[in-house]
Parts: sequence; C-alpha cells; structure tokens
Amino acid sequence: MTSRQAARLLADTPAIADAHFRAEAEPYHPRLRPNGYLNLGTAENRLLWDAVGERLRRLAAGLTEEAVRYAPLHGTSVLRERVAALLSDACRAPLAAEELVVVSGATAALDVVATALCDPGEAIVVPAPYYGAFDTDLAGRSGARLLPAPLSAADGFRLTARAVDRALKRARRAGVVVRAVALSSPSNPVGEVHPPDVLAEVLRVVREHDVDLVADEIYAHAVFGPRPFTSALDPSVNPDWADRTHLVWGFAKDFALPGLKVGVLHTRHPGVLAAARALAYFAPVSTATQDLLARMLADRAWVSGVLAEGRARLAASYEHAVACLTEWGIPFVPAEAGFSVWLDLGRWLPGADAADGSAAGFAAEERLRRGLFEQARVNVLPGAAFHCPKPGWFRLCHTVDAPLVAEAVRRVAAHLRTQGAAEKYAEKYAETNAETNGARP
Amino acid sequence: MTSRQAARLLADTPAIADAHFRAEAEPYHPRLRPNGYLNLGTAENRLLWDAVGERLRRLAAGLTEEAVRYAPLHGTSVLRERVAALLSDACRAPLAAEELVVVSGATAALDVVATALCDPGEAIVVPAPYYGAFDTDLAGRSGARLLPAPLSAADGFRLTARAVDRALKRARRAGVVVRAVALSSPSNPVGEVHPPDVLAEVLRVVREHDVDLVADEIYAHAVFGPRPFTSALDPSVNPDWADRTHLVWGFAKDFALPGLKVGVLHTRHPGVLAAARALAYFAPVSTATQDLLARMLADRAWVSGVLAEGRARLAASYEHAVACLTEWGIPFVPAEAGFSVWLDLGRWLPGADAADGSAAGFAAEERLRRGLFEQARVNVLPGAAFHCPKPGWFRLCHTVDAPLVAEAVRRVAAHLRTQGAAEKYAEKYAETNAETNGARP
Repeated sequence: MTSRQAARLLADTPAIADAHFRAEAEPYHPRLRPNGYLNLGTAENRLLWDAVGERLRRLAAGLTEEAVRYAPLHGTSVLRERVAALLSDACRAPLAAEELVVVSGATAALDVVATALCDPGEAIVVPAPYYGAFDTDLAGRSGARLLPAPLSAADGFRLTARAVDRALKRARRAGVVVRAVALSSPSNPVGEVHPPDVLAEVLRVVREHDVDLVADEIYAHAVFGPRPFTSALDPSVNPDWADRTHLVWGFAKDFALPGLKVGVLHTRHPGVLAAARALAYFAPVSTATQDLLARMLADRAWVSGVLAEGRARLAASYEHAVACLTEWGIPFVPAEAGFSVWLDLGRWLPGADAADGSAAGFAAEERLRRGLFEQARVNVLPGAAFHCPKPGWFRLCHTVDAPLVAEAVRRVAAHLRTQGAAEKYAEKYAETNAETNGARP
Repeated sequence: MTSRQAARLLADTPAIADAHFRAEAEPYHPRLRPNGYLNLGTAENRLLWDAVGERLRRLAAGLTEEAVRYAPLHGTSVLRERVAALLSDACRAPLAAEELVVVSGATAALDVVATALCDPGEAIVVPAPYYGAFDTDLAGRSGARLLPAPLSAADGFRLTARAVDRALKRARRAGVVVRAVALSSPSNPVGEVHPPDVLAEVLRVVREHDVDLVADEIYAHAVFGPRPFTSALDPSVNPDWADRTHLVWGFAKDFALPGLKVGVLHTRHPGVLAAARALAYFAPVSTATQDLLARMLADRAWVSGVLAEGRARLAASYEHAVACLTEWGIPFVPAEAGFSVWLDLGRWLPGADAADGSAAGFAAEERLRRGLFEQARVNVLPGAAFHCPKPGWFRLCHTVDAPLVAEAVRRVAAHLRTQGAAEKYAEKYAETNAETNGARP
C-alpha cells in the first residue's frame, strides 16, 4: 500500500538515532544505575546550557502575537539578517540575508540543497569517513547517490584534494553524473579544521570538474585547536566559485541547541536559491522559534561571549577525554574542532590485524561495536557508520559531564582487554600514536 | 545547474502566499493608511490570541534544558499522547499516541502522507473546489497528481459520494493509477460540515475502489453551525476502512497558532506509519515548541474553554460577515465551519453570464480578482485557486477585526457596481440566495 519512494527511504533509516534512544532510555548513574548506558554516540553538546539557558528562558517569555502568525516560509527577514551577520564574521565573507533560507534543521537544509542540485540517480562525492547521516540527509529524499572519496588512515584521514579529484575522475569514467562534492568543515567525525590551502585546492578541483560544493559548516564556531576556521566561502580560498558553493549551518552545535531544529542554507546561486525557497515550504521553522533566536542574536557582545565560552569548554572537555584515552592506552587522531575523538581500535578486531577494508574486517568491527554496546554498555559509533575506508575506527563524543567520559573510556579499555589481545595493546598504541599525533598538528 | 525535480516544484509555487505578503506589507488603517490593503485572502484566525497568549507566554518561560535537546524526530511521546487525547474526543474514535507523527506544519503532514502513498505520476482524487495549497502540499514533492472531482454549484458545492465515484471511474477508464481520495473536513473553502451519511457513502466508495482516504481535519474544532463535526475515523461512518484512512490535523486553525508550524498525521497503517516516521526526519518540530504545546494541552479544562470560546467568536465573526454581505447584496453559500465565506460573484463576470467553466469564464474571474486587489485593494482568493469547476466564486476570510470585514465588503460591493451590471445585482442576489441558503441548513 505504501509507495516505492517511501519503501526506499525506509530501507535507509539511520542507525544512529536507534542506539541514541536505547542508550538514553537507560542512562548510567554512579549510584542509581551503575550499569546503565553511557551514550557517547551522539554529537550533542551538553556543556553550554548554563551559559545560554537563563537568557533563552527570559527571551521565550517575550512571545508575541506576531510570533504565532504566518511569516515568510523561508525564514523571517530579521532572523536571516542576524544569522547573515554572524556567519559573515565566522566565514570572513559577506553573506546577505536574502541569500539565506531557514528550514527545520540542518538535515532539512542538506535535503533541500541536494534536491535542488540533483535528480534521482545523480551523484554527490563525499570525502570519507563522513558524517553518516549524510546518507539520509543528502540522498534519502533527493534520490541522489553518495560516492565516498576515501581518505587515508595513514595520515589520520586528512582531507586532500587528490582524494576528491580521484573520486570525481572514477565517477566520470564509470559514466556517473556527479553534481556536487559535499564535506563537513570542520570535519566530522575526525575533527579536522581544514587548512586554507587544502580548501583552495578542493575548490580548484570542483571548479575543474564543473560541480558544486556543499560545505556543511555547522561546527564553524566549535574550533578549539590553534588553527582558525576557514569557510569554503572565504574569498582567499574561493575567489571564483562562490555562486557554486552552498553552505549549511544551524544552531545545533555552536549554540548547543539541537532540539530547536533550526538549519540554514546559504547560496548565491539564483536557481538553487529559488528552489530552496520553494522546498522550505515543506520544512518551515516556527515563527516563534525564529523570533526567539533573532532576539538572542541581537546582543552581539553576549553572543561572542557565549561562543568563546563554548570553545573554552570544548577545549577542556577534549583535553580531559584525550587524557583518559592516553591513560588507558587507546590510540586516536588528535582533533582541533567538533565534539568527538576518532579512536583507532583496529588492533582489537579479532582476526583482522591486516584490516584492509574487507567485509570480514567490518564484520569484526560490528562485533566489537556490539560488544561495547551490550557488554560495556557504551554507545560509540563504528567507522562503518561513517563509511570509513578502513575498519576498526570509532567516534567517541566527549561533550557530556567529564566523569561520564572517564567511566566510558575505562569501560572501553576494560572491554578491549577481554578481547584477548592484551599484549598487542601497548605495542600498537606506541606505533599508532607516533603516526597520527605526528601527522595532525 | 538546478535539478529537474526542483524546476518542477518552482513552476508550481502557490500564488496564495504572494498575495498574502503583498497585502500584509501595506495594511489598511482607517486613519494612517485608509487606502491600504484588506487581506481577507488568508485563513488566519486573528480572534483568539487574547484567550491564548498570556498562558502561552507563561508556559514559554518554562523552557528547560531537556527541551533544547534531541528528541524523537516524529514527535515527543508526551505531545503525541496529549494530541491523541484531544483528537480522540473530537473524532469520537480512539486515536493512539503511537499512531501519530508530528511534523513542521500541516503542509508537511500532507506531503508525508502523499509521499508514503504515491509514486510520481500516481493520482489523488480531490473533490473540488478544494484548498488550493493541496496542489503543492500533496503533489509538489511527492510527484503525485491531483484529479479534481467537481462538485455542483447548484447545491452550493456540497460533498457527494457520487462525484468522488465518478472521478475514480473516469481515472480508471483513463488508465490512471489512483492511490487515494483527499478532502478537507470540514470543507475549505466552502465551510461545509460533512454530514455523517455523506462521509459513510464516501468511505464506501473509496473502499469499493480500494484506495486510501486522506482527511484533512484541521478545522475539526472550528465548527459554529448546528451540525456537529464527524471525523472520517468515527466508527459510525467508518466501520472497516480505518487503517486506510489517514487524518491530518494541526495547531494552526483550532488554536489560531499558524506560526508555530505544528502538523500531525494520524495513521493506523503500519507501512504508512513507518514511512511517515522516516519522512518526519526531514521536517521535525522543535522539541521546545512540542514541550510548550504539550504543557498547554495538559490543562484539559482550559483547553475546552478556549476551544468553546473560539467557536463562539467564529460564530459571531461569521454572523457579522454575512450580515455585511446581505446588506450589500452579495450572494454566498452559508457556512457551518471554518474561517471563510464562499462568495458567488459570477453575475459580475463581464460577458460570462453563462459561466460554464470555460477558459473565458476563468479569464474574466481573474480580471475581477485583479480589479478587487489593485483597485478595491481587497485580497480575496478566486475560485480558480481552489480548482472550482465554475468561474466567479471567491473565498473571503472573515476572522479578522469586524470593522475590517465591513470595510472590505463595502469595497467589494462598490467595485462590483463599477462593473456596469448594477441592475443584475439585486435580481441575481435574490435568485442565488434562494438557491443556496435553502440548500445548506
């Protein structure tokens, strides 16, 4: 009775949400539920509410009649103006309010831009490992297909223009019509702040191949490493491809307000903009929520303070997480941004030392994930959920109370020991960290 | 550079929104802008805010950390439970929370159910005149096509099972795959509360043809006539087609909160429900907004009071509007529900007395609409926007301050006089009202 287009979508529902809600239903508590789940699977920042909540509550009480009425369905002009000002600073590029479309979440913004760019069967190249929900966000409704451009584990999965170029060429040889390259910047799951020269090279490649660039910059303000964020729209890296470059942003990460479901698409392409406005009709944001956020953004000094505080807390959270990992000898790729650490557990994949991207390797990874979830009761997402080209990698989100992270890392380490490869532990640790720490300043 | 699917949608953007925002930008004010626009084109209820606003503001101030976090993307369980309780009363049928999917507006709910039921090119039969935005809501993204089932002007466009049956048979003969019948109940634009026996017959017809029924019951509580609302899910009219019957509802009309963009789909069909949950991922509602509305619904006595007050105000607004129309001799179909009156201006279509649904008749209607908008500066929507089978009908929304309605009717009447058919005026008025007032108790 249901349509084929609905059935296709169903086959494709993201597993991330499932594990999240199972873990949230039975959370760990040191006294009340010591064997409860530790949910480090979801990139939700729980460190900022006390800096935001009081003001937000006060602003929410200022609900007006105007704010429950119909408003333009692609976003109120005042919210678009204030987001444009905020992002113009972050991106060091002049973003105009009329180039923005506000929709109910970054997922909707990604869906909108993919639908505007692609017809069913056309492709988007995505450097991998990539944010797993891209599969649904960019391809679920649009009918586009995603082609991973594998990055190399040897250098901590850093973005390279070469990997993008190779994937585009391979697609062309296979006769696939590619419409765009999409990437997270800063990257998720790895947490890399892409260097300007790499972004400039990627832009040269997409220009050469005459495809659009979709840059998901939802972590733009969540940078805590020494390298500053560079937007794909920064004129110094993107002098001539700006109207083929489309940015996605939202309030979920930088302001730690994922429940508000406010996403933004920025585009200068008149056709994409017109299509995005039409598509926004199906995923509008409450006028009241827009009004609330517009009033929150009005106080620029307060906003700067909150964002700076957010970065400081992220840095502290990250330092604590990697101290725990180091203490227990679990290797990882150092991060510069985002809410997570990318762990290398390849050594503990039973019988997959040569971990080469084979199905057997990923089956072993899934066994390890299930063990971590069911036995250690820690929810961390496996590399397969991010289309990682090599099995054995896991994303651990650390933006929760520090004791929870400490407990989770302890449990992960204890579980790894039971994998009967204790002796490989120290050896692999020394080796991997020499590799990756050196590779990622 | 943009996709064909986006281009198709662009060709199809609803005109209603345009006229609305043009009129809203230069609103009438008796002193400050006496020549401003009177916007009676939009079904927005501006009569209820003082009964709702204060409480809503107070509840909004109770924003919690929980309410800015991730929550199930098809609606929080508490909101779904409370909406289920509300609708179970209204529908006199047991609606369960787990049969509900919450999305960002009734538009999104209609898009979701159409996408779940139809593949591109498949059809939905809709009794006409129908709510014009169905064209976008049901067909824009799903790729379905709408087939109007014309109702008869002679009896005030009352819903009949015969018209639905005829359209389904015609489609079958033409080899079109029809997946569903969709209707507004109470009806929009006509404002009919569908009698139980008619709904039962319609359900027999859809069952006979083995198609689903989509009932947009967003005006369920907006009934002010003597006939009570009967839901398409009421067991007395729908004993055996409940799992092929899908309801749409929202907070826009009954609670006069269109800006909050909260729509609901109810379905008992496991496949449609699963698809709807997957599609809800692209159009979620803010957890905070859901929390606000759930707390609003918690006080059942207050809710009953507000809904009763809303009905009383609607009744008064309607009585005032039809008193103005009667005073100025403008014929209309009596309404029992909703925010509008359906006007018969056919007599004033220049050179189209025989108004027979020809292109010439609708061209004349469009000239009259433009005259009303540009000269009288009254925004009312023409029958063409509702796929009315006969030209000359207009929807006037009366749920604004009474003096605005009086001024609008005065302007419409004055404009009609300039159409040089003054003598036909009184004559036609007597005739039409004898017809339609008699036909619609």
